[in-house]
Parts: sequence; structure tokens; C-alpha cells
Amino acid sequence: MFVRMRGFTQYIRLSEALKTILSNIRPTGSEIVPLENALGRVLAEDVVSEVNVPPFDRSAVDGFAVRAKDTFGASPQRPVVLRIVGSVAIGIPTSLSIKRGEAAKIMTGAMMPRGADASVMVENTKTNGVKLKIFAPVTPGKNVSTLGEDIRAGDVALRRGQVLRPQDIGLLASMGNLSARVIRRPSVGILSTGSELREPGKRLTPAKVTNANSYSLAAYVQRCGGIPKILGIVPDKPEITKKMLSKAALNDMVLVSGGSSVGEKDLVPEAIASVGKLLFHGVAIRPGSPTGFGIIRGKPVFALAGFSVAALVAFDLLARPALLAMQCLPPDYGRYRVRAKLARKISSALGRFEVVRVSLRCEQGVILAEPIAIAGSSSLSSMTKANGFIVVPEDVERLEKGHEVEVELY
Amino acid sequence: MFVRMRGFTQYIRLSEALKTILSNIRPTGSEIVPLENALGRVLAEDVVSEVNVPPFDRSAVDGFAVRAKDTFGASPQRPVVLRIVGSVAIGIPTSLSIKRGEAAKIMTGAMMPRGADASVMVENTKTNGVKLKIFAPVTPGKNVSTLGEDIRAGDVALRRGQVLRPQDIGLLASMGNLSARVIRRPSVGILSTGSELREPGKRLTPAKVTNANSYSLAAYVQRCGGIPKILGIVPDKPEITKKMLSKAALNDMVLVSGGSSVGEKDLVPEAIASVGKLLFHGVAIRPGSPTGFGIIRGKPVFALAGFSVAALVAFDLLARPALLAMQCLPPDYGRYRVRAKLARKISSALGRFEVVRVSLRCEQGVILAEPIAIAGSSSLSSMTKANGFIVVPEDVERLEKGHEVEVELY
Repeated sequence: MFVRMRGFTQYIRLSEALKTILSNIRPTGSEIVPLENALGRVLAEDVVSEVNVPPFDRSAVDGFAVRAKDTFGASPQRPVVLRIVGSVAIGIPTSLSIKRGEAAKIMTGAMMPRGADASVMVENTKTNGVKLKIFAPVTPGKNVSTLGEDIRAGDVALRRGQVLRPQDIGLLASMGNLSARVIRRPSVGILSTGSELREPGKRLTPAKVTNANSYSLAAYVQRCGGIPKILGIVPDKPEITKKMLSKAALNDMVLVSGGSSVGEKDLVPEAIASVGKLLFHGVAIRPGSPTGFGIIRGKPVFALAGFSVAALVAFDLLARPALLAMQCLPPDYGRYRVRAKLARKISSALGRFEVVRVSLRCEQGVILAEPIAIAGSSSLSSMTKANGFIVVPEDVERLEKGHEVEVELY
Repeated sequence: MFVRMRGFTQYIRLSEALKTILSNIRPTGSEIVPLENALGRVLAEDVVSEVNVPPFDRSAVDGFAVRAKDTFGASPQRPVVLRIVGSVAIGIPTSLSIKRGEAAKIMTGAMMPRGADASVMVENTKTNGVKLKIFAPVTPGKNVSTLGEDIRAGDVALRRGQVLRPQDIGLLASMGNLSARVIRRPSVGILSTGSELREPGKRLTPAKVTNANSYSLAAYVQRCGGIPKILGIVPDKPEITKKMLSKAALNDMVLVSGGSSVGEKDLVPEAIASVGKLLFHGVAIRPGSPTGFGIIRGKPVFALAGFSVAALVAFDLLARPALLAMQCLPPDYGRYRVRAKLARKISSALGRFEVVRVSLRCEQGVILAEPIAIAGSSSLSSMTKANGFIVVPEDVERLEKGHEVEVELY
């Protein structure tokens, strides 16, 4: 009797796979980091200011602190003349008090003296001893940064969940913070399986190939805010595979590439099922269909294809959203898209979510997306030559030349 | 006689300032980094592959290696029957040779045996002992990754000047590289001047303010690929300022904030002129007009305003392009834009390049850009509340509500 060798009996849809994954993801918790390391990190709590910024009324220009009323009507033809009664330096508290008809010389950032409610820019003045001519009027509050103008004590200055940018870090510093409580970066254990693999730089004997996946996946993890831990090559032996998977699951997430298809040597899904729980195996995406997902020690484990492109595409579609969710970031965080017109038609199988790498070029002001012709999920050059990719959803069989598409940029 | 205090006599245009800056910038040279640290770095040389990737013809599927010709005409109704003469494992060289009517069991990634020119997926077969039924034909080359299909020995695989992405790092690894020669990250010395400054976390006595600029500028430098070196607070003393500037110029670039305006205590431009060469001081931008630029020890030195927003905007417009140029990157690298409609009108002075911070919101499918009303270049919260900014060029006096603008995202 002829028997059918075991193949994938069914592929689950991408959306179903994502639902299963995300329902098993928890945020990684928080940690305190110094401001110098806070760029791009996700705030784990609201930041309430304990102080007013600025902490006092200060001049926003170099010039003269005055009572605004005294300058009303000043013009180049009919300047107002005031008497300079002193000078306010930066960084030194002043006891000066400005009365009617008086002015004090003041530097940008210096504390406004009592009585003064505006500053006149030096460019609009002339002096002669203690006499000051003012050629333009100022309104009350003009050229003054008032106490708490930027942030008031008690204000929520920054919100939980926001990604810290340079200006946010400046604001934290200006409120007196030297550190911030942020979401911990998830550590990701990375394994490559296959007795045929050799590390880069080692001489390849016949039938052996270089382990590239550990390095490209590590870079992708890093780009998504994770901390990659390259844990080496796993030989095609069930016991060693199980042991290394269990150990890798001491991290917050595990990526295993290779051994995820359905041949006899495809040990990973079985090993996951043996030391943990395999939740699915086989997703209706291309490339990357032989992708599995499970839980070991409560940690998400992705069994990615061995072929480089399939591994990276499956990471992108399935593991990246999980890694972002662990950091309380939305699934499209860090994604940028451009609209383009297809340079030629694309065919795709119904029922399969297809990722097509494209290169972009501009012709007569129109951005064209050219599908990259290199076939095969092993050709990394199809991704290195690409500027981005487009997706063909399950219910679309073909996209015509000239069709407007959204290109996700690499 | 009344005398006019020294003010800015003239501001140069942004384009002129940029020309002066960029004509004084040289790339930082190169260094070798391990692949683990190569993400986002700029390749300093073309990478020519010394090897073929893959290094041999290999099966792209689990199934059977066959002579394609033998499968022609196969169908579910009329399967072709071949004889299994052996099995090829992954990672082990095979001496098998496939003759007419023969097939070899093969794993994904295993070396194709001599004589075979295609693989049949296991899903399209049934076996009974050494008999193999094939239910669909394959064309020559089908399901085989051929030697050098991805990269041929001697090919330029990656080009000088490109920024390394995860797939590029994978490609480097697959060619056997464990490292890459990349452009060295520029080190940037960061000084904050002002006797009124205190480091965050220190208690503020009256008239003192917190040094926020060092931290926000450091984060911005980091975002642009530089290595920030926070060098502390410079008191308002000419000799100390000169000494610290000279020392800071041991780095590839220097940023000094504060002391760049034209008051008596504005020492930085004079100090630059004294220990190096001041090339301009005062730029027709807002905020950030009191920005200066010079050269010390051959290194570019930016004198930025003390007020936080002015310092960050001037960094963005003037220092960022320089930092990118040092890394052989184009001035708009890392910039992303969205189109939006102005939620209300903007007025600007003719002859001045103005940066207006905006927050974005969506109303009935239209993206609206709302200019942030907080005045003053000291209010960091105007930037922390912003999603990005729009620019109003020198020759535009106002932009009407509803006008379509390009928002540069923060």
C-alpha cells in the first residue's frame, strides 16, 4: 500500500496565528535607566513634575527689564527715556525693585526684578550713562518666561507608554530627573538548528552551509527594541534540541530557525510540544509557511523556517508584533509606508497572505514598485535588493500593473 | 551721546549657513565592527563575495530528488512511479547518482544528488517500500536552490554607503563574514555654558536653573548615529570657556549651548574666535537665531542658544545634516513626512525660516496639523506635545487654514 508522507495538513490564517500569539504575550515589566540610555525607551509610568519649569520669572532676551506701561507709545521717532537703576546677572538672585520710570539691565535667563513685567530687547534701545532710550513699546509679559510656563508642579509632563524622544529626555532633565522608569527590553534567545550549519568564518566542508539566520534575526530583534542573545547552533538531535530550547526559554522570548518544516529531521515543533506546548504549526503565509509557535516555561517560542527569507518574513509578521507588545508598543510601531504604483502584475494564491519584496524607483514623478524576480525563500539577496515589501491578502489573486499599493519600507 | 548696545547686525540665511557648515565637514573614516554591532551602520566599502551562496545545489523542499523529465505527465489520476534508490541527509555529502526512473529521498537544504535536476514536494507523493508515486510533474530546476543563486563569488553583494539592515547583516554572515568595515560613528563633545546651571537632581537655589540641554542634545546626537560625550557645565568665564572648548574639540564635533547670544556674558562665539575660527554668528531662523558656527582644531563647533527649543531646532537644522554628512548619509536620512492640512493659519516674518511645532489629529479621515500655541523658545513642552513640525520658508509670510503642508515627524 502506498502511504502519503506526513505533510502540513492545514495552515492557519495569519490573523488567527497573531491572535494566538498576542493572547500569550505579557509586558516585560519595568526598570530604571539613566537619561543617557533612555532614548527610544517606553515610559512605564506617568511623570508628574515636582517643580515649576522655569522655577522663576526670567527674561527671554538680553535687554532691559521694565514696567510695560512705561514703554507705551515709544517709537523710533519718539523714544521713551527711562533711568537704569541696576543690572541683573544670570544665576544670581536680585533684590532690585523696578519703580515707575525705571529699568534694569538684564541678561537672557536672568531672574526678573520685582516690579518689572516685561523685557525690552537690547536691539530696540540706546544708552547714555544711566539714561535708556526705548524705541518700541512692549506689552505686559513680553519677553518674559514666567514661572511654570513650561511645566507646573503637579502637572503630568509625560505619559506612560510614550516613546522617549530627545525633547522628552530634555524635559525629564529640566524637571530634575536623572533617570526614568521604562519598560524593560525583552531578551530574546536565538537558536539556529541544523547539523549542516557552520558559523560564519569557519571553512565550509561539502554539504555544509553558513549560519546567517542568527545574525539577521539578532539585528531584527535589536531594531524592535529587544536584546538579542545568540545561543549558537543546535544539532539535529531531539534531546539536545529540547535541552537548548528549555535553556533558551530563560529569556523573555525564543526564536529558533530551521527544523520547523515537516521532514523527518524537523525536530523543533516536536521538541516544543515535548518540553512545553505547541499552539500552532503552519501558517498560510508566503514565504514562511512552516512557522510554528508555542510556549515553554511561559515564554513565547517561535519556530521559524531555516531558509533566511522565510525566517525574516515570519519574524516580521508574527514575532515582531509580539516583541513590540511586550514593550507596550502598537504592532505597526516603527513602520513607514509609501504609496507606489506596481511596475508589473503580481499573481498570488487565494487563501494565502503573500509578502512580495519590491524595489522602488521614480519615473516622471511617479513612484514605481518593482516586484523582485528572484524566486525562493533562501535568497537573501531578494531582501537586500528590496526597499520594502507589499502584501497580497488572502482574498486577492492578482494585482494588476499600475495598481496603487502601500509599500512597507525596510 | 546715546549708544546702541551691540546686537545682531545681520543674520545669514539658512541655506548659506548650511553651505558654510557642509564645506567644512569631512567623513570620519572607517572601522571594523562585529556583525552584532553592525545594525544601522554605514558600509565603508563595497563587499565582494568570495564564495557562492548557496555553496552547492540544494533541495528547497522536503521530498524526492528526481530527473524532472521522469515526472512529465504525472497527475493525481495517473501518477508516475519511480524507484527510491537512497536518501540524502542534510549536511552530509552524497555520492548518490540518480538515473532514469530513479529518485532519492531528500530533506530541505540537502545537497542534490548527481543526475537529479528537481525536487518533488513530499505532499505530492506516496510511497510503498522503494516505490514512489508522484502526482504532479516538476520542471527542471523546480524546488532547487542552485549554487550561487543568491550570490556568486566575485559579485558585489553590498555597496559602500548603504545602511546595514537585518537582511544585509544576514547576507554578510551567509558570505562568511563575522564583521564589516563601516563608517566610524562621530564622537560629539557636548558643553552647556552658564553659571546659572545646575545638573538635574541637584537642589536649585534661587535664580538657578537645571541643565537640560546636555541631555536632550546627547539623545539627538545618538539618534543621528553619533556618540555623545556630555562634558559638563562651563561657567561664564572666558578663560575656562576657551580651555573647555579646546578640549571638547578632541572629539569629531562640538556642541555648546548657551552663551551664544550677544549679551555681555555671551562668551562662546568670542571664545571660538579666540581659540579657532568663527565662521558665522546669527542665522535667520526661528527659533534658534543666535546660532554660531566655527572651527577649532579642524573640528566643527556649533554655538547653540541656551534656550532648549532654540538649541534643539538649531541642532536639527544645522548640526544634524553635518553629523549625517560625516557618516556619508544624506541630510534627510531618518526623516519621515506626512501630508496634513493646517488646522489654523500661521503668520511668519518675511526673510526668516520658521519652524512651527504641530500636533497631528485625524478628523473625518483628514490629517490636521495644529500649530502648538505655546510661545517662547524656552518651552520644551512645545516640543514634547508636538508630533512634528512644519517649516515656513523665508519668502512666505502666512499659511492659511486648510493649506496642505508637509509635517516632518519627530
